[in-house]
Amino acid sequence: MAKIAVLGAGIMATALTFPAAENGNEIHLIGTHLDDEIIDSVKKDGTHPVLGLRIPESVKPYYFTDAAEAIEGADIIMSGVNSFGVEWAGEQLARLAKPGQTILSITKGMHAEEDGTLHILPDVLKEKMGPLADQVDWAAIVGPSIAGEVAVHHLTCVTFCAEKQEIADKLAPLYRTDYYHVWTSTDFIGNEVASCMKNIFAFGGGFAPGILKKLGQENDKYVMYNYAAALFGEGARELKQMVELFGGDPTVTENLGGVGDMFVTTMGGRNVRAGTFVGQGVPFSEIRNVKMKGVTLEGVAAIGVVGEALGRLTARGVIKDTDFPLVRALYEIVAHDAPLDLPWETFFGGER
Amino acid sequence: MAKIAVLGAGIMATALTFPAAENGNEIHLIGTHLDDEIIDSVKKDGTHPVLGLRIPESVKPYYFTDAAEAIEGADIIMSGVNSFGVEWAGEQLARLAKPGQTILSITKGMHAEEDGTLHILPDVLKEKMGPLADQVDWAAIVGPSIAGEVAVHHLTCVTFCAEKQEIADKLAPLYRTDYYHVWTSTDFIGNEVASCMKNIFAFGGGFAPGILKKLGQENDKYVMYNYAAALFGEGARELKQMVELFGGDPTVTENLGGVGDMFVTTMGGRNVRAGTFVGQGVPFSEIRNVKMKGVTLEGVAAIGVVGEALGRLTARGVIKDTDFPLVRALYEIVAHDAPLDLPWETFFGGER
Repeated sequence: MAKIAVLGAGIMATALTFPAAENGNEIHLIGTHLDDEIIDSVKKDGTHPVLGLRIPESVKPYYFTDAAEAIEGADIIMSGVNSFGVEWAGEQLARLAKPGQTILSITKGMHAEEDGTLHILPDVLKEKMGPLADQVDWAAIVGPSIAGEVAVHHLTCVTFCAEKQEIADKLAPLYRTDYYHVWTSTDFIGNEVASCMKNIFAFGGGFAPGILKKLGQENDKYVMYNYAAALFGEGARELKQMVELFGGDPTVTENLGGVGDMFVTTMGGRNVRAGTFVGQGVPFSEIRNVKMKGVTLEGVAAIGVVGEALGRLTARGVIKDTDFPLVRALYEIVAHDAPLDLPWETFFGGER
Repeated sequence: MAKIAVLGAGIMATALTFPAAENGNEIHLIGTHLDDEIIDSVKKDGTHPVLGLRIPESVKPYYFTDAAEAIEGADIIMSGVNSFGVEWAGEQLARLAKPGQTILSITKGMHAEEDGTLHILPDVLKEKMGPLADQVDWAAIVGPSIAGEVAVHHLTCVTFCAEKQEIADKLAPLYRTDYYHVWTSTDFIGNEVASCMKNIFAFGGGFAPGILKKLGQENDKYVMYNYAAALFGEGARELKQMVELFGGDPTVTENLGGVGDMFVTTMGGRNVRAGTFVGQGVPFSEIRNVKMKGVTLEGVAAIGVVGEALGRLTARGVIKDTDFPLVRALYEIVAHDAPLDLPWETFFGGER
């Protein structure tokens, strides 16, 4: 058993309190300054309003103003903010974390330097934490898990990755239950990169349904699974290539954190919904500013970061201009309102 | 342009006449002795009754009794029968094919020898053809393509694989259109093995929906995509391992013929439907003999062949008893009426 402080009361962070609390761990769920309504609700009747479920009774809710008290003495701090809050989270950890604690990250995405060099989000946390970053241990959870499914005890298989095997070995049993299966990996980079990339390709999962909607063929006998499958295949190929570019183990791509996670992410969610509008022919700026105004789109954000970086990496000769044709096409859509006209002939290494 | 004789008037073989006929090739569509009703319908008003579409006017329908006339002088003979008819097809080809023709196979599956040695179906065709097999060229089409989607011109990406690159290069342009994109590969074995394996894993795609149905939770807010994604991930891993066992190129698994094809096959179809009954708790013998009596289940048949062979290959020490845990579990379900209780902890190399 351990004392686990969870920073951020979003649906994924909160869902993970279910297996952890059921195993008898002491859980402190700390809302960020944006989560006050969630904490209000949990304090009132134990319900997480977005998840739509009562969370385990033993989970103690905290407002962000009480974060220091909540984190005091924790063995593990889970960083559960979304990718837009990762720098903020790093600043808080710099202030609140203590040497010897383990930081367990569940946020997916990437940041880029000016020259296009890409970094996984735990590296962003580390940078903001300064010297303290070397005095804590680092781990992350990856793999196909829709938050609500974990919370209602539907079977879920994930990978806990850590820089040191003993840290992964320490964390896994705290979370393992008969419905939450945990594998471990020391390929921190490969798993984190794959987790970001699958969010990118999920956006494309909406294209085929959108095209059918536009054509008025949604309920036809024949839909467009061939299209979706080809995109899935090219997505898997580019996901692997990105893992290789980072020096990660490419075999993660054939596993939970690769195609498994891409499968679940393609089945639905906000990024898929945004992609559906693209399929219907809506320029992306209109999706961002009107159709889905104010909706958090982590996959789309990752396309922006990675897509722009690819241009810079190409200019520097780090990658070829024929590499990552799908990510580049997605970038043109989200950054420059390009219409949906995918360069199929460039996929899979080039049609020939 | 070429003269293409298609043996078997099933939906996939017939759908492929669309791009080929639109490109100006001369197509002879030959029903087997089981396809008389289909050929009747095509001769009457051009409609394929199962596909539910009018086929291109230039496609000439033939009854099997006129097969010799239809095949005479063909550049390409497409073998379009299903996996249960492959031996029969080989016998017909032995009689009807001529040296110099190209045999283009679209049937997916495997056969096994007594000692568990597995063979791809083109090898079964070859064996039945005898010495003539060395005087023809061999090719196959793999990749994610639902037949009807090809026929209605929805975008489709596939791989034409051949033992010789020049054969693939000759075939591909005959079929390429603006909706039918063709890549080529000389990894005949790897692609064929992947195509069979994805049918095997499609069966598992029905489990989660079936479990939800049994629980009365089909319309709940949270369904079971995590479960489906974990199965997909383990399926991808075992698909790759099988390709490696055959000496194929494991990179096909990350491509159209691997995860792409597995994605499309998991989206629906007869094997998924059979898997749904398993999820609901129906013993497989009842599915076979009652619920889906008379329905052709190629994926389930492949589970039977491959699953039994795995036992023999394990006994001979060719593979370890920890290899292919998902295929083995599926085999127990279809061969021995085992209830659905997957050994999750053995997946992904073993939970640890």
